[in-house]
Amino acid sequence: MSCHFKQRRKAVFSETDLAGIVHFASFFPYMEDCEHSFYRSLGHSVTNMVDDDGINIGWPRVNATCEYLKPIRFEDEFEIQLIVSEITDKTIKYDFNFINDDKQLLAKGSVIVVCVTFSETGMKSTTIPHSIRNRINTVTKQS
Amino acid sequence: MSCHFKQRRKAVFSETDLAGIVHFASFFPYMEDCEHSFYRSLGHSVTNMVDDDGINIGWPRVNATCEYLKPIRFEDEFEIQLIVSEITDKTIKYDFNFINDDKQLLAKGSVIVVCVTFSETGMKSTTIPHSIRNRINTVTKQS
Amino acid sequence: MSCHFKQRRKAVFSETDLAGIVHFASFFPYMEDCEHSFYRSLGHSVTNMVDDDGINIGWPRVNATCEYLKPIRFEDEFEIQLIVSEITDKTIKYDFNFINDDKQLLAKGSVIVVCVTFSETGMKSTTIPHSIRNRINTVTKQS
Amino acid sequence: MSCHFKQRRKAVFSETDLAGIVHFASFFPYMEDCEHSFYRSLGHSVTNMVDDDGINIGWPRVNATCEYLKPIRFEDEFEIQLIVSEITDKTIKYDFNFINDDKQLLAKGSVIVVCVTFSETGMKSTTIPHSIRNRINTVTKQS
Repeated sequence: MSCHFKQRRKAVFSETDLAGIVHFASFFPYMEDCEHSFYRSLGHSVTNMVDDDGINIGWPRVNATCEYLKPIRFEDEFEIQLIVSEITDKTIKYDFNFINDDKQLLAKGSVIVVCVTFSETGMKSTTIPHSIRNRINTVTKQS
Repeated sequence: MSCHFKQRRKAVFSETDLAGIVHFASFFPYMEDCEHSFYRSLGHSVTNMVDDDGINIGWPRVNATCEYLKPIRFEDEFEIQLIVSEITDKTIKYDFNFINDDKQLLAKGSVIVVCVTFSETGMKSTTIPHSIRNRINTVTKQS
Repeated sequence: MSCHFKQRRKAVFSETDLAGIVHFASFFPYMEDCEHSFYRSLGHSVTNMVDDDGINIGWPRVNATCEYLKPIRFEDEFEIQLIVSEITDKTIKYDFNFINDDKQLLAKGSVIVVCVTFSETGMKSTTIPHSIRNRINTVTKQS
Repeated sequence: MSCHFKQRRKAVFSETDLAGIVHFASFFPYMEDCEHSFYRSLGHSVTNMVDDDGINIGWPRVNATCEYLKPIRFEDEFEIQLIVSEITDKTIKYDFNFINDDKQLLAKGSVIVVCVTFSETGMKSTTIPHSIRNRINTVTKQS
């Protein structure tokens, strides 16, 4: 499967730990930021998306995973590739590859997000709006 | 000036950086958690305080400082001492001392918080409610 | 399978995000701190463990997962249960359950750590030392 | 005083807190990353600088401050300006301004770093190497 969005970044000092490498938990904000950048590339911000009726929606994570193959160190540059690997009625699964400039796979991760509407009593899962599904489908079919 | 509240903690792995010590930015959540624990000791939660009219108030920070004297390392235990060093009509200044078990001063910090009410258009500074000022005064006069 | 170690904690402000709940990445330091507390309960620190020949060993993560069932909010108290779910020659898999005071499962996670020795050229996987394996076996057989 | 280095950035989700704004502690990694980018602009990495004798040096922080004027929100873009405001024999003080695209000052901060060499017994303050002082002087005199 080809990649649907790419983001380059450089590891910063505050993401490292005393083992001298990027802390394993830092890979999750990396993935989230890549996902949010993907939404922006589609013309959306994760904080102001609405469903087909104009109701605010959100995308809480229900699952997140990461497999660590090679350490990332301070000031290492790498690319994060986002792949839309599965869309159901209410969820999207994103896979992520972390690749260095020698094309080595450093880590692989995934998150599953569920589309929700917000109310006074909390969040409720809802069908992904057509407008958003269509945009994502356009990107994934192009690649 | 004596100390008005104390909290013990132990440095965790994710707070360290590649220099092998607790990252300098980690001292600020340490201070914030101590401040919130202080409010809880007064019977308040920072997220549900109200003014004398029952309006929700908050305490955004307008200033934060830290002076680093000795490094804190993974699994080091230390005490954080909170001192209410100044109260004005709308602000409170908290000073913090980070002390190890040999009574050595590891770091000194401060935060200044301002009492605000929330509205659609944002936050507005407001006079500290009497009920909260009274409780804080009781604690600071006892010590 | 019963639980081999427990840790209580309370969510702090800096772990939350603009959705008003604990950020999904914060669950990974939670798991790591529980794992390190488990080692301490066995008389070890993760930073000074040695193999049967006195060589320093470490436990980098090769995999981490989390499934999010119910949000954790600021000042929520919860218990993290650690289960040693699999030990191979060189790896340990820890499962974690996040449980609130109503016995509701909030999240489930896992990490797989690999035993390594350190050298000038990096880390090399190694057999888990007998002394450590024995202590872990003692704990898991008791429960 | 004019600015000696600039960095643009965009606030990400994991930097926010339940108040819906960038958490006050996040401003410190922002400043640190700007400082490290400044070193890179001079041809240095903070992790491999050496003194005039080829001994490794480091730059631990001895002081950090931040004054918060306007909140930064998720996806806000802003510029961080670095000013070398004071150099002594062994320390450098950096001032930072956080500016939005309407030229409004969002926050002001500072860090004081001290030049140290590393040994088995810890860190020892040392005179800033001529080569590094000269490069910094060149930049500050140009502006």
